Amino acid sequence: MKHNKANYGDESPIAAFATTPGSSALTLIRCSGKGSIELSSSVFTPAKIKDAPGNTVIYGWIIAADEKIDEVLVSVFRAPKSYTGEDSLDICCHGGSVAGKAVMNTLKNAGFRDALPGEFTFRAFMNGKLDLTRCESVMEMVCAKTDTARRHVVSRLSGSLETEINKIKQLLVQVLAGAEIYLDYSEDEISADEDEAAGKLPNHEAAHNALAQLKKLSASWQLERIYREGVTVVIAGRPNAGKSSLFNSLLKEDRSIVTEIPGTTRDWIEAWVSIDGIPVRLVDTAGLRESADSVEKIGVERSKMLLQEAEIVLYVIDGAQGITQEDSDFIGRGVKRILVWNKADLALPPQPFPFADNALVCVSAKTNEGFAGLNAAITDVIQSQANFAFTDLSAGLGTIRQKNLVDAACALLEEALALTEKEEPLDIIAPLLREAVNALGEITGEVSAADVLDEMFSRFCVGK
Amino acid sequence: MKHNKANYGDESPIAAFATTPGSSALTLIRCSGKGSIELSSSVFTPAKIKDAPGNTVIYGWIIAADEKIDEVLVSVFRAPKSYTGEDSLDICCHGGSVAGKAVMNTLKNAGFRDALPGEFTFRAFMNGKLDLTRCESVMEMVCAKTDTARRHVVSRLSGSLETEINKIKQLLVQVLAGAEIYLDYSEDEISADEDEAAGKLPNHEAAHNALAQLKKLSASWQLERIYREGVTVVIAGRPNAGKSSLFNSLLKEDRSIVTEIPGTTRDWIEAWVSIDGIPVRLVDTAGLRESADSVEKIGVERSKMLLQEAEIVLYVIDGAQGITQEDSDFIGRGVKRILVWNKADLALPPQPFPFADNALVCVSAKTNEGFAGLNAAITDVIQSQANFAFTDLSAGLGTIRQKNLVDAACALLEEALALTEKEEPLDIIAPLLREAVNALGEITGEVSAADVLDEMFSRFCVGK
Repeated sequence: MKHNKANYGDESPIAAFATTPGSSALTLIRCSGKGSIELSSSVFTPAKIKDAPGNTVIYGWIIAADEKIDEVLVSVFRAPKSYTGEDSLDICCHGGSVAGKAVMNTLKNAGFRDALPGEFTFRAFMNGKLDLTRCESVMEMVCAKTDTARRHVVSRLSGSLETEINKIKQLLVQVLAGAEIYLDYSEDEISADEDEAAGKLPNHEAAHNALAQLKKLSASWQLERIYREGVTVVIAGRPNAGKSSLFNSLLKEDRSIVTEIPGTTRDWIEAWVSIDGIPVRLVDTAGLRESADSVEKIGVERSKMLLQEAEIVLYVIDGAQGITQEDSDFIGRGVKRILVWNKADLALPPQPFPFADNALVCVSAKTNEGFAGLNAAITDVIQSQANFAFTDLSAGLGTIRQKNLVDAACALLEEALALTEKEEPLDIIAPLLREAVNALGEITGEVSAADVLDEMFSRFCVGK
Repeated sequence: MKHNKANYGDESPIAAFATTPGSSALTLIRCSGKGSIELSSSVFTPAKIKDAPGNTVIYGWIIAADEKIDEVLVSVFRAPKSYTGEDSLDICCHGGSVAGKAVMNTLKNAGFRDALPGEFTFRAFMNGKLDLTRCESVMEMVCAKTDTARRHVVSRLSGSLETEINKIKQLLVQVLAGAEIYLDYSEDEISADEDEAAGKLPNHEAAHNALAQLKKLSASWQLERIYREGVTVVIAGRPNAGKSSLFNSLLKEDRSIVTEIPGTTRDWIEAWVSIDGIPVRLVDTAGLRESADSVEKIGVERSKMLLQEAEIVLYVIDGAQGITQEDSDFIGRGVKRILVWNKADLALPPQPFPFADNALVCVSAKTNEGFAGLNAAITDVIQSQANFAFTDLSAGLGTIRQKNLVDAACALLEEALALTEKEEPLDIIAPLLREAVNALGEITGEVSAADVLDEMFSRFCVGK
């Protein structure tokens, strides 16, 4: 993505496609910036957009030198009552690959420039419409893969994380304020109270309270990351064990297939499915040749690579054949695997089962039985890996940026508490508390460096 | 596309995605129908959509049983001031694959049903917002492949064809009225004028005028069809003649690549390019093996198939090698080919050139010379095939439905004129004129059978 970073932060009129061009009914173009309403008025007929009140929709044509370009609906928003906080317009043109492009060209000829990635949201932040956690959740929403993920994002979008961070910061500010009073005044000027006890901070309880909450928040990332990025589950097993049938059954079972990744150059098949709301990238290695033939060795290498990527391996055993030496060899190696006894309608696993360390699930891809159990087994493994119960938190961390800052605040606070216990003087402890407060401020964007913002928003999609 | 055709024509609240779901910033959902504003009010907070005036935009959340689903902007339109002429809403939700889906589910739980293909435009027609030519142009716009095609569609979208058809129909109505007067009254009751001459219709001039215009309109289809559907140009030639380089140079030359068709199962490469505004499906057969090897015969068969599909074949001659026997054999067969002398930077064609029947263009894919000439040669061939000068008509036909009806009117009028010349009685001529008027009325939808409408709109995309 080539762009001049210096452009972030100006108020010039920008435009971008907000919907994917394609053979859809409509295409939406977003415009924002100082003078954007006047500019678009110059390429619109017959009504005068520039006289339109905010939050109104006007019907007409985009025109260029009196040539009609496309029939559109224009929504007009007046600062500060808009997404960006600036004067803005949403132009709804016809779908397809040419109408939107022609309108965009007209806008650019009129003086709009292409928006940078995330620039609308950047402006919303700069104009105080959204804090940084909400800004990030806007982009999280676009990337969300399952409805459960959406629910978590909606919570942050509504400000749950902003509220949570501000609550913790308030506690720390309280502690910091207490410490600074001690620094400003000599000790004998202040009346003694319980917090003055040796080895304790002023507002010691608040500090511990904040630390506990920060730790809880930090731990939430593990789960949120799973909802955000998903889990790779690879299906392995001997030829004809029923890998593809299992793949198809899992797709069928979970109707909420998110997307199939086009596999032009791949010789394995994969699809995103939702298992209990967790986005699962399900990979079927059946296309890979398992023989030792020289040409087919590439397939074996790819299989190994896929198995290494896997968070969970579903190892399929052909129930009709029972456990072969090849099966035993594979199951003996490595961990993180669920054994799937397929064709359970034909034969059940031997008792006692030789690989008791592994989760075992009996299914029949043919009769379609056992899949609820398989889903539960997958969820179990993910839960235990995430080391976290699948309960809804009031707020969770949505991005690694947030996680890093929470961890930084955590570490600073822990250090401050450790120094306090060693009865070190407050003038070396107070700066740590101040830094922890700043780290939390950076999460919501109260405190932020310009380059951090550029870096963050440039990862957004254009039109956001 | 399974749907109950009986549903077209009711006024129930419908909803559909109007933009392609994907990793875009926003997703637009269109709603329309009796009670649609009240219905959506039940799943929206905090403002009351049902109190909103028409053409206003309201910010808020879509909710389901108090759970927030997504943050949205809702544009409210009040009948008859809307696209469909009914109460309508455009709901602008977050992009990505889950937010829009969740909002759509909420709407459907509230009582909206999925819109049928083209149902919004169908309703616009039924409510007198658009005539049928404009309805069809809405869908033409979505399918338009080049900016020139868009320009032609914009003209129809603005009503140019509707106006043209109505003008011709007026002429015919005049002729018909004249004829019917003769039928209603006996001849001696009407004073004689020039139109009463034997072998002439009343308003004979008008009839001939109408016929001329209908023929012109009918001829316009040839050109419009090309802009609509494009032309297939296949690149052929011996191995290493430079087919792929030519393909790439043509793509580069015409920056307005419309789309690359993903070729997962294809062993040839194709792309849409715009050559002088004409959508050209450019096919490179270079991936096809040309040898006689048994495995590779499939490739040869595919090549033949592609050559048969081609409106134009670009046959590439390796200038460095000169004309081989293989080249001569190919050029000798068939027609519709432009000979492309490649590597013209190394050697020029022999003089006199042996295949003077074919267009010859010298290019160098290496130095990138000669491509303007090649484009001109392609355009020339298309022009001569279309048998039509590339001038902008005030109105052209956009669909085969329109073409068939214009041709029907033409044929009826010609028959009426022929019978008139034979001095056949007006009572067998008048019904033909009446039918011709009806055919024209059917183009704009003044006269139309319900099943014709169902058939027509069911070919639209959903959300239109």
